[in-house]
Amino acid sequence: MRDLSRDKSLLAINSATVKPWTLEQLVKGCKRAGITAIAPWRDIVQAVGIDKAGAMIRGAGLTVSCLCRAGLFPAADEAGRRAALDDNRRAVDEAAAIGAGSLVLIAGGLPKGSKDLAGAHEQVRDGLAALLPHARDAGVPLAIEPLHPMYAADRACVNTLAHANDLCDELGEGVGVAVDVYHVWWDPDLPRQIKRAGKRILTYHVCDWLVPTKDLLLDRGMPGDGVIDLRAIRRMVEATGYDGIIDVEIFSAQDWWKREPNQVLRICLERHQTVV
Amino acid sequence: MRDLSRDKSLLAINSATVKPWTLEQLVKGCKRAGITAIAPWRDIVQAVGIDKAGAMIRGAGLTVSCLCRAGLFPAADEAGRRAALDDNRRAVDEAAAIGAGSLVLIAGGLPKGSKDLAGAHEQVRDGLAALLPHARDAGVPLAIEPLHPMYAADRACVNTLAHANDLCDELGEGVGVAVDVYHVWWDPDLPRQIKRAGKRILTYHVCDWLVPTKDLLLDRGMPGDGVIDLRAIRRMVEATGYDGIIDVEIFSAQDWWKREPNQVLRICLERHQTVV
Repeated sequence: MRDLSRDKSLLAINSATVKPWTLEQLVKGCKRAGITAIAPWRDIVQAVGIDKAGAMIRGAGLTVSCLCRAGLFPAADEAGRRAALDDNRRAVDEAAAIGAGSLVLIAGGLPKGSKDLAGAHEQVRDGLAALLPHARDAGVPLAIEPLHPMYAADRACVNTLAHANDLCDELGEGVGVAVDVYHVWWDPDLPRQIKRAGKRILTYHVCDWLVPTKDLLLDRGMPGDGVIDLRAIRRMVEATGYDGIIDVEIFSAQDWWKREPNQVLRICLERHQTVV
Repeated sequence: MRDLSRDKSLLAINSATVKPWTLEQLVKGCKRAGITAIAPWRDIVQAVGIDKAGAMIRGAGLTVSCLCRAGLFPAADEAGRRAALDDNRRAVDEAAAIGAGSLVLIAGGLPKGSKDLAGAHEQVRDGLAALLPHARDAGVPLAIEPLHPMYAADRACVNTLAHANDLCDELGEGVGVAVDVYHVWWDPDLPRQIKRAGKRILTYHVCDWLVPTKDLLLDRGMPGDGVIDLRAIRRMVEATGYDGIIDVEIFSAQDWWKREPNQVLRICLERHQTVV
């Protein structure tokens, strides 16, 4: 692995990690801490409006590793699918406005009342295909993020990097993957699928898997506090030629979201240098 | 799919479903309900002793679909691995004593303090290989049960049917798989891996995935109450030639474990006929 551990420019703070903060607070907080990249969620961008958000981020000289997140394609009827597609097109425009390196997409789960997993998979593929021309026109790469299988029912039915890679094969130019260690660390096929993804890795996210994990969604750990071999996965990712930003994204209702955000940033910086 | 839905003889009650019951209560309760098969966990067998347990089950004319469960191979040191192997040999003896169709094994997770997933995978393979001669001598087939990836860290690092099938390929005669819908339903590779498993499917377990799922371990649903397409998976399993028993196994601390067990049995019977 290249010794990038001291290079602050490779760390991005995901806005989900400092949940209490607005975009303005995130921008100012990162500037103060000497962090040069962010990965905002759409809510804090929308809260100020995309023009003002873009100006604020550019004015601070920050890089936007990616915009989180859109997708959620499957729906129970045609109107639902059309609404999802419209929202995804808006997300592409938001990503373009703030100069995001990619737009992160999660698949979406089973439509309400449905048990048709294969049908949901088809809706995801069709939704991505329908979104792609607009994304290509806007110059926004789409990053399909496989989520942990425990989210298959209600958040995302694309749950392995293999599945995301298959979608990339099918859809072609303009689509890549987001690799988040939390979702893929358990997969015995991971080394092979990271290699297969190669240049398609658009963004790389870290946090940690805690033992015990007390909540399916909101109990993720700070890098170093769990069982994921972060250095090993980073080595695999960088072996593909990825030398991009590492995005720290932590959902943690009972711990990190309750701490003082500037302090959280300092710990992210420290862990980035010691364990990521 | 063959119309087996009215055939009570194909339903087994797993003792985890009626957690408050002793083996004697389980045996008597199943007899009363006209259920002819059980799948006990080791705790209730050990509580009465294997000789008495075997006599009690045989006396009631019940079939034992499988004994749950052993495995848990990885350990931090040689003494730990030896203790695991000793315990697994005792489990084989227990399975033989009660005439179980197979002994269900889960892999075990990462040893305490370890992040070496590949190393844990090796320990599982080595542990299975070391156990196998004793299991073959005793005539007890070993059923490797892949657990949901959310258990990779602390319960089982074999999390896909593909991985379990790979282990079977490597280990040969005497090893098969346990397919539990809860653990594998999300996998886009499931149809292919069930077909690949073929005659190796030793036992088939059902419950359901609830939305929302409130606890990683103890919030499984009664068949029909969740999002798993049970009939579709059963069709795949039966297409391999499996015409064995379907084991209802529900971990449900806040719901089913609090209900009156005889009532739980009646609902299992009803769901077996209507949705499984």
